[in-house]
Amino acid sequence: MMEELRYTADVECVGTVFRPAGDGPRPVVLVAPAFGGVGPFSKSKAGYIASLGYIGVEVDYYGGGWRTDDRDAASAKMGELQADRPALGARMVAALKAARGLEGADPGRVAAIGFCLGGKAVLDLARSGEPLAGVVPIHGLFDAPEGGSAKMNTSVLALHGWDDPLATPDAVLALSQELNAVCDDWQMLAFGNTGHSFTNPAAQSPEDGMAYSAQADARAFAALEAFLVERFAKTA
Amino acid sequence: MMEELRYTADVECVGTVFRPAGDGPRPVVLVAPAFGGVGPFSKSKAGYIASLGYIGVEVDYYGGGWRTDDRDAASAKMGELQADRPALGARMVAALKAARGLEGADPGRVAAIGFCLGGKAVLDLARSGEPLAGVVPIHGLFDAPEGGSAKMNTSVLALHGWDDPLATPDAVLALSQELNAVCDDWQMLAFGNTGHSFTNPAAQSPEDGMAYSAQADARAFAALEAFLVERFAKTA
Repeated sequence: MMEELRYTADVECVGTVFRPAGDGPRPVVLVAPAFGGVGPFSKSKAGYIASLGYIGVEVDYYGGGWRTDDRDAASAKMGELQADRPALGARMVAALKAARGLEGADPGRVAAIGFCLGGKAVLDLARSGEPLAGVVPIHGLFDAPEGGSAKMNTSVLALHGWDDPLATPDAVLALSQELNAVCDDWQMLAFGNTGHSFTNPAAQSPEDGMAYSAQADARAFAALEAFLVERFAKTA
Repeated sequence: MMEELRYTADVECVGTVFRPAGDGPRPVVLVAPAFGGVGPFSKSKAGYIASLGYIGVEVDYYGGGWRTDDRDAASAKMGELQADRPALGARMVAALKAARGLEGADPGRVAAIGFCLGGKAVLDLARSGEPLAGVVPIHGLFDAPEGGSAKMNTSVLALHGWDDPLATPDAVLALSQELNAVCDDWQMLAFGNTGHSFTNPAAQSPEDGMAYSAQADARAFAALEAFLVERFAKTA
């Protein structure tokens, strides 16, 4: 049985904790799943985080551990949540606060990564102004919430497929303008000839701009690893 | 006395070779200087390349080893060369061919990096269609030459300050469109709140969008080193 992390905002959410071997306070990385909700993909990424020596926490932003493998159901659920950005932000903040209290966690060193809608979730967490070691949206969605953003208290690295139909060059420009205003330290690593979902081997719809890219996947995770090392060292 | 590399296109040019310790065929990295021409900055970068185990070649794209420390003189000289892009490209191709013939060079593993106008120079080298292991413009200038570009036969990593007044978001978009058409493998790592010349400690004009950034400098060279390792492994 996996170790659960329960936290409550407007709904009760059920995350899953992946621990590295050994004792001692560890940095924590929240892993926000793609629009289908918690499941094998984000669990594997949280496990990978544990392999790096950090506590990986797969985050539930829908509540109740909701998940689906059905694209239409996922799209509908995503639409609901995108229409309630304060709820998305509040659930991510609740996850962060719960993660800080995990046994064995170093509460001063928590980062967050997220895929697709999870990329928006971690950006909204940054937009809350909560202090974080770093935030990494991976083929994330960029649009700012209506309520705008607090001054961010973190570093952002966006890992982005330049041809992502869900995050076009116009959206990149809008994000850059937003971040220049509210974030002192942000970067974007963009991959050419690369669309959405480039880290997900199950994505095989290049005609829709959504396809796995082994090369972009490898480069993205190499950049992520280096970023986490840098940020956790700075906040040690 | 430094080892010279002489090569001729429309004019004779004088590069400088920096070698790592040890024998055996080595990858080569051309280092194209900023608009002041060859000099201490690009020589130090070619020496740093040698410290990585590659042969570093500081490239002369003006001819005759022309250089200046005077900004106005550099601007005038840059303007002349920018008005003759075929000459710029031909001089870079001549440098590449000469570098391939260097004793101890692995002619199948040559990359090129360049700063400022040197970034344009290495992009124009890529635009020639010559095979290269990789090309890295660093706070480079992006505008395409009138003659357009051949199909590129290399991988490109642009290291870019998002607020660079000489390479605005519009120029980024234009470059991305050009590269999507002619380059199968390109990436851009963009640094927020960062302008032109971010690798040059002498750049101290933030009011003009030109300022050294220790953080962007360190991140850019870490990304460059990883890119060279990756590309030279792929082309081994």
